[in-house]
Amino acid sequence: MGRFETVTIVGVGLIGGSLGQALRARSLATRVLGLGRHPDSLDQAVRRGAIDAGTTDPRVAYAEADAIVVCTPVSRIVEDVLQAASLSPASALITDAGSTKGRLVLEIERDETARSKFVGAHPLAGSERKGVDAARPDLFDGRVCVLTPTERTPADRLSRATDLWRAVGCRTRVLDLDTHDAALARTSHLPHAVAASLARAVPEEWLDLGAGAFRDCTRVASAPADLWASIFLDNRRWLLPALDALRADLQELESALRHGDAPAIERWWEIGRDRRDHFARLQADGNTPTNP
Amino acid sequence: MGRFETVTIVGVGLIGGSLGQALRARSLATRVLGLGRHPDSLDQAVRRGAIDAGTTDPRVAYAEADAIVVCTPVSRIVEDVLQAASLSPASALITDAGSTKGRLVLEIERDETARSKFVGAHPLAGSERKGVDAARPDLFDGRVCVLTPTERTPADRLSRATDLWRAVGCRTRVLDLDTHDAALARTSHLPHAVAASLARAVPEEWLDLGAGAFRDCTRVASAPADLWASIFLDNRRWLLPALDALRADLQELESALRHGDAPAIERWWEIGRDRRDHFARLQADGNTPTNP
Repeated sequence: MGRFETVTIVGVGLIGGSLGQALRARSLATRVLGLGRHPDSLDQAVRRGAIDAGTTDPRVAYAEADAIVVCTPVSRIVEDVLQAASLSPASALITDAGSTKGRLVLEIERDETARSKFVGAHPLAGSERKGVDAARPDLFDGRVCVLTPTERTPADRLSRATDLWRAVGCRTRVLDLDTHDAALARTSHLPHAVAASLARAVPEEWLDLGAGAFRDCTRVASAPADLWASIFLDNRRWLLPALDALRADLQELESALRHGDAPAIERWWEIGRDRRDHFARLQADGNTPTNP
Repeated sequence: MGRFETVTIVGVGLIGGSLGQALRARSLATRVLGLGRHPDSLDQAVRRGAIDAGTTDPRVAYAEADAIVVCTPVSRIVEDVLQAASLSPASALITDAGSTKGRLVLEIERDETARSKFVGAHPLAGSERKGVDAARPDLFDGRVCVLTPTERTPADRLSRATDLWRAVGCRTRVLDLDTHDAALARTSHLPHAVAASLARAVPEEWLDLGAGAFRDCTRVASAPADLWASIFLDNRRWLLPALDALRADLQELESALRHGDAPAIERWWEIGRDRRDHFARLQADGNTPTNP
């Protein structure tokens, strides 16, 4: 007997599968249902312990849902949330796991039923791998989950969404839509774009000359193209200025290099180093077992 | 009794310390000496099993050296090699571990004694950490060590340098100076510059919104500022065009974003993804235990 009755996960891949495993491992739900388009993937999700049962029929998936978590790619989230809203009980909570929030939430809120049930969410957890085979029940442990309620979000739904994301291990943080999208453009989407560009910069015959820096800086370039094209496009309002700023920043380095100005290069480097060391301390703090 | 008699390591930090540990763990040398400027660091290197004994006196360090490996920062390598050349036996081999090669090797070869003993080397192994406390005897296992002999390098010295770097675990690869510096500008120096810039792009109040991509893409930004300012400046002839190319490549992505051209973004991404996946396969092959 858990905090939730039936939880329906839409899209049981890396994120949805990890969520299901976390819910089931902690006995947080009476039943975890998976909704997907491919029976084989749903069977595999059952075998991986991510869901109790799977269905390709939205009516079956939503009829008794207490909480619904939409874990599909950002290009599909709006339609999935609208369908979930129309087919689920009036009491249901709907949340998502999309990497962008502005456009999605605004489109969802145009629908009266959807906005009465929905709380936008973005758990900052993932991997360059995809599919339920990459799922892990501890994927969310200690990770931040950003919640993006608007003035139209019912307070009880925000409270239940907070409860759900914390229950699977997240620390929650509330941000407005613009702040989420502006920040994630810099902390996630920009590193992804740069990782791909760094990989593109090395011709095949030099690939064996890559070592640890190249390995780590390009890791996320292995992620699926369609997924990231959608995220980049969805968030281009904030990603474009972030790319601009990065190019200008590299020009600052180039200028110091042209002038042979070692102290300027060191100062430039030190700001990045201090920022990175600060980040490492935050991560270490976040990973101490202080979650509710 | 090993393949080498006295091996002298100049600068017993991460690289020098790991080299000493590898030599000692595999009993490759009769004696491993450390030359440094700080007695405390040398004592610590002895405690970490990196050297048999340490000295701050170059005459003592070089008098009986069979092989000398200069592991100091690139800004100090030329003077250290010249000193080693003048104080070591005529039969000595001198090699280094510097991240750049062109300027260093050309300056070293102006000295007749130095060029009769020296083979430029760059083991592609390292870490954002520094000092002998970060040293590991397996740091070189399966890693490429680039050797950069010139037409003036004696064949027997190249053969002994190859033997030494292979003995500690490296796969060796011979490249000319320009190819080394051009390739490393792309596979190492560019990722380092971009890592620092990505860290600089995130204001402190958003640092807790960084996740795996930010963590990995910025890891090497923690490295010491003076070390990387020297490397960047030393290799600016190749780093500047690499930075230019990266900025142009990001502009290509920006243009596709402005046009909302999803297929173009996917194609752009896929080239990077394929390159990255190819790199991962090479790494997996390199880490299989097929070294001599």
